[in-house]
Parts: sequence; C-alpha cells; structure tokens
Amino acid sequence: MPTKHDVERFFSRGHRQYVPHLSVDCVIFGFHDGDLKLLLLKWKNSDIWVLPGGYVRWRESLDAAAHRVLRERTGLRRLYLKQFHAFGGMDRREGDIRRLFATLGVTAPRTAWPLERVVSIGYYALVDFSKVRPKGDYLSDRCEWCPIEVRPRLAFDHDVIATTALDSLRESLDAGTLEASLLPARFTMPELQRLHEAILGRSLDRRNFQKRMLERRVVERLSLRRAGGAHRSPFLYRFAASRSR
Amino acid sequence: MPTKHDVERFFSRGHRQYVPHLSVDCVIFGFHDGDLKLLLLKWKNSDIWVLPGGYVRWRESLDAAAHRVLRERTGLRRLYLKQFHAFGGMDRREGDIRRLFATLGVTAPRTAWPLERVVSIGYYALVDFSKVRPKGDYLSDRCEWCPIEVRPRLAFDHDVIATTALDSLRESLDAGTLEASLLPARFTMPELQRLHEAILGRSLDRRNFQKRMLERRVVERLSLRRAGGAHRSPFLYRFAASRSR
Repeated sequence: MPTKHDVERFFSRGHRQYVPHLSVDCVIFGFHDGDLKLLLLKWKNSDIWVLPGGYVRWRESLDAAAHRVLRERTGLRRLYLKQFHAFGGMDRREGDIRRLFATLGVTAPRTAWPLERVVSIGYYALVDFSKVRPKGDYLSDRCEWCPIEVRPRLAFDHDVIATTALDSLRESLDAGTLEASLLPARFTMPELQRLHEAILGRSLDRRNFQKRMLERRVVERLSLRRAGGAHRSPFLYRFAASRSR
Repeated sequence: MPTKHDVERFFSRGHRQYVPHLSVDCVIFGFHDGDLKLLLLKWKNSDIWVLPGGYVRWRESLDAAAHRVLRERTGLRRLYLKQFHAFGGMDRREGDIRRLFATLGVTAPRTAWPLERVVSIGYYALVDFSKVRPKGDYLSDRCEWCPIEVRPRLAFDHDVIATTALDSLRESLDAGTLEASLLPARFTMPELQRLHEAILGRSLDRRNFQKRMLERRVVERLSLRRAGGAHRSPFLYRFAASRSR
C-alpha cells in the first residue's frame, strides 16, 4: 500500500526515472467460457476502472515497457504483443488522474508532471487465460477479467483504446496466426469457432467456418477426441506446426 | 535562414512551445514516372538526409502535428494520412542531432532538451505527385522526391521508419482504397499495374492483374481512350464512385 509520502515522492522525483508525457497502455485479451475478456484494474477507494499501463523508463524501449507492465499484471514473460496505435488527442482527459490521487488522499500540485499531457502508446496482448495470475498495481485494489461486452466504463480515453485494439485484432484475424495465443494447445472446432465469433462480435455458419479453417490449413485434426458426455465426443485440433507457438 | 541566435533560442525555450521527447515523422509517398517516390530533406551544409518531421506542440493532437508538417512540406491541406507505428527504441541515434547543429555552427549544450530521448510517431501520407510543391524547412537546403529504390541513406532510424511505412502500405494495398490517392483522376490499366508493382517491389502478370481489378469493382472503365501514339490508345479508368476521393 503506497503511503502519501510515496505518492508525493512520485510527483517530485518520478520524472527522473520515467520519460514525462509518455506512457504505454495494454489491452490484454483472454478467451474463457466462450467470452473474449479484458484484464482491467480498479483503483483503490473508488469505482474507477482502467487498462493496465505505466510510464516508460528513460532506459527502456516502448516494447520493453509494455512487456514489463504485462509481466507485472499477468505473471507471463512470453506472450503475443502488438503495438497498434498511439493515442495523442487533446481529449484524453488527463484530469482523471486528479481523481485518482484524490482517492489516495493526495492533492496533486497544480504543476505536477503527471498532470501534463500524456501520449500513450497502445499495445494489445493475447494470452492463454489459464496461465494468467492477475495482480494489481500499487494504485489498484482489484485486477480482474471482464467480458468485453459487459465491461465497466473505463477512465481517460481507455474505452477508445480498448475498442481500437479490438478493431485491430479483427483486421488481423484473417492471417490465422493470432488464435494460437488465445487457445490451449488442443481445442475443438466449436471452441475455435466460438473464439472467432467472440472476436468478431457475430455468429458464423458452422459448416462454412469448418470448411474455411481446414482449407486454410491453419489447424490440423488430431486422432484424439475430447472425452465428454454421452452424446458426442468431438475431435480435437491443434494449430499446424509452422504457425503454432 | 536561421541565425545562430534562433537556434540557441530553440534550445533554451523550445520546450515551452513543444512537448519534449515527442515528434512526428512523415513518410510521404508519391507516384511519378512509374516510380514510387519519397519526399526527403537534406540538411544545410551537409550530406545528411532525413524524413520530414517535427516536434508536437502542447496544444496540438498528433494527427494535427502530422498535418502541419505535411502542409508545410507539400503545400497540400488535404491528403491521405495514416499513423502506422510509434518508434521508441533505444537505438534511435538521437546523437545525430548534434551533427545537425554542428553544421549550423552551434554546439548544443550537453543537457539541451532536443538531445534527450525522443519517441517518434510515424505517419505515412499518399499524395498526388503533380499537386505537390516541395518546400524545405529552416534546417534544410533541399526538399526532393527520391525513388524509394535509390534513395540516399537516411539519418537517425529514418530508414527503418521508411521501410516500416512501405510494409504497412503493402499490407493495406488489398483493400483497394489507397491507390486513388496516388493516381490522377483518370489513368490507364498499365499505370495502375505499374503503381501496384512499384509498391510491391515485384512485377505482376498483366492478365491476372486486370481481371482482379475489374472483379473487385474498384475501378470502372470510361468510354474514353488516352490519345497516344500510332499503335495503341489505351482505355482510361477511374476509381469507382464510392471509393474515389
């Protein structure tokens, strides 16, 4: 738990460690129970939800900063990471940061460097839901998966960042290399279809989907079936070797 | 022509006007004489070539900064503009800026803000070559179109930025909306094919190309032919209405 002193020190000295005016924000996608989900943080003593993110250190590339944030929030060292857009409009509502610090009992000095304009580099990450151990940062008391369809409203311009990330993910879906990061090593065709549907936000025809997946040679059928209920035991698939993790 | 005093003033006061550590760089593509070309600047008193770019003002979005740079270098107020990547590695060779100022007779103070790390937001622009009036900035003595295949080596990481822009342009080519920004209102099929070849860096089969373009309904044939030599007068095409500028 950060003390008031810690926060005041961040205001007075943080710009020696971090490049001012520059941050990374991470849209972390996971797939679970048929839903595409986002990993979100809730700030302490408030109902303010945000994307995981952070300032960039002076001796750290943008990609390294994103990996650091992702490692701290998910516990994962390796994941699919893509920079998709830089957000630098005049309407980013940096003023929301005042609300954050107010919840910690700190009134930010009027000229404090974190209150100046910040340009944020957006990254999205695709992770294996089952391997993530969500962990909040020192400003948050919750770090949770939320289905994208029913997520809380996000502070700053983070809803725009999340929506833009989803658009970018959709555009890349045809390449057929992304899904491997979101599914376990073995999966059924209905699970793969449900993932595509969750990303695209619409339902797909079962026969056409299966036909297209097999024609693209992205996945290959194993000789195994999922042990299941009495009525059916669907075949298992995996991503073709050249495209797997 | 900037005086030594102007430059020293930029070092001492520029950070009041511009966000430090943040710039935009613009990869300006034009198509002429069958070549895809880039608009480049040469710094005064040197053989150093760079992409057009600049710092971002405090009260200016990233997009507005890119439009400002593009307007100043090309004279165009409207053009196809796309943000494609943020460059923030540790190997951007900001030290090259010392060489620049040395050519102007100014030794930059060791702690000057323009010598600190800069993250650059990359934009590419597609322009109608015939409408551009190239104009250098106050640091340059030449502003010229160079074919991408035979361009000079660029300072900083600008070669990486230009190459990444070209990759991004190639990925977007299939959408069939980009070419309208690079060609005049009426063009022949061989001109359109040559544009695709220049972007892709390889030759294409004439029959397949024509078939694909017409099937995609991106272009439509006019009842006009280009008046030409004795042997042939090719049909003219234009981009279909819904996709034209």
